[in-house]
Amino acid sequence: MQVIKKQSGAAFKLKKGQKLKVIDPEGEQVSDMVLFNAKDRREKLSSGKTLDFEESILISTGNFLWSNRSNKMMELLEDTNGRNDFLLAPCSPETFEVMYDYEGYHPSCFENLYTNLEKFEIEPDDIPTAFNIFMNVQFDEKGKLSVDPPLSKAGDYVLFEAKIDLIVALTACAAEDSNNGSFKPIHYEILD
Amino acid sequence: MQVIKKQSGAAFKLKKGQKLKVIDPEGEQVSDMVLFNAKDRREKLSSGKTLDFEESILISTGNFLWSNRSNKMMELLEDTNGRNDFLLAPCSPETFEVMYDYEGYHPSCFENLYTNLEKFEIEPDDIPTAFNIFMNVQFDEKGKLSVDPPLSKAGDYVLFEAKIDLIVALTACAAEDSNNGSFKPIHYEILD
Repeated sequence: MQVIKKQSGAAFKLKKGQKLKVIDPEGEQVSDMVLFNAKDRREKLSSGKTLDFEESILISTGNFLWSNRSNKMMELLEDTNGRNDFLLAPCSPETFEVMYDYEGYHPSCFENLYTNLEKFEIEPDDIPTAFNIFMNVQFDEKGKLSVDPPLSKAGDYVLFEAKIDLIVALTACAAEDSNNGSFKPIHYEILD
Repeated sequence: MQVIKKQSGAAFKLKKGQKLKVIDPEGEQVSDMVLFNAKDRREKLSSGKTLDFEESILISTGNFLWSNRSNKMMELLEDTNGRNDFLLAPCSPETFEVMYDYEGYHPSCFENLYTNLEKFEIEPDDIPTAFNIFMNVQFDEKGKLSVDPPLSKAGDYVLFEAKIDLIVALTACAAEDSNNGSFKPIHYEILD
């Protein structure tokens, strides 16, 4: 079991057929995840292709995560919470300026993704919209969005299976609104 | 007035402060649009940043289109139809295989975007999720998506203002589902 400390991130390789279990150990925490083809980093996770092919805004058990080249990257095998977001970009320094009127340095998922992905020669501009595990973004019939506290309870998890060799980056989210104002760790496990 | 013939595309520069009018001349047609910073093509349109900062799935008059670096790229000054999509990736050859069970060559917005963007040294992998002007993607409270015929009438338009120097690519959509099965042109005009 690997621990991602509060407001930090991790990046690692996951081979085709391996499973990744992403766990919310305390409840009400979010983990932003991005994916790259390990053999060609120009192929990466695409929210637009995923929402198109899965015909749904909400992605959960039985759905696939697709790449910008229209290939399946992961399948969601289990999802004990059942609410994830694939609309919103990872929180970045500008998120805290534009959305929170926050001044000065603030940790962000965007920074925690690109600093962990540096070792794979992936740059900030390469980071796509993340699959935001456990994130509770509500929408009404007019499309109005609100970021609500996650519904995840302690021990909730999502189990993914890699469909190709992947580079995976994960965070323990650094934004107050995403996790009800209390920063917590995320756990993950790689299963063969 | 420039004409984009049915199932084709165009790409051009638009200077900061210039306006772009995208017109549906016959009604029920869609135009996929992608944007790049003309001075640094690694900065480009981001659906995730736009939906986050505008706090809405539906983007229309008064909203901005944002980049992956959290900068405003365009403002929507007027939108006579009022329905656009920013969820779904441009139709690509695989769209017709996966979604339509179509075999053989089919023109696509993805191809029409990247072939027109070649002259600016922008490659297929660089194409982000497009802002799909006039596209009528409906969603229910469970997030289920459906691509319905556009609501646009002949002469409907969206007027954009560039907030930075841009490279713009536009299509006249090549997918049957997006335009109620009848391929039509798109017109556009650049206004100083």
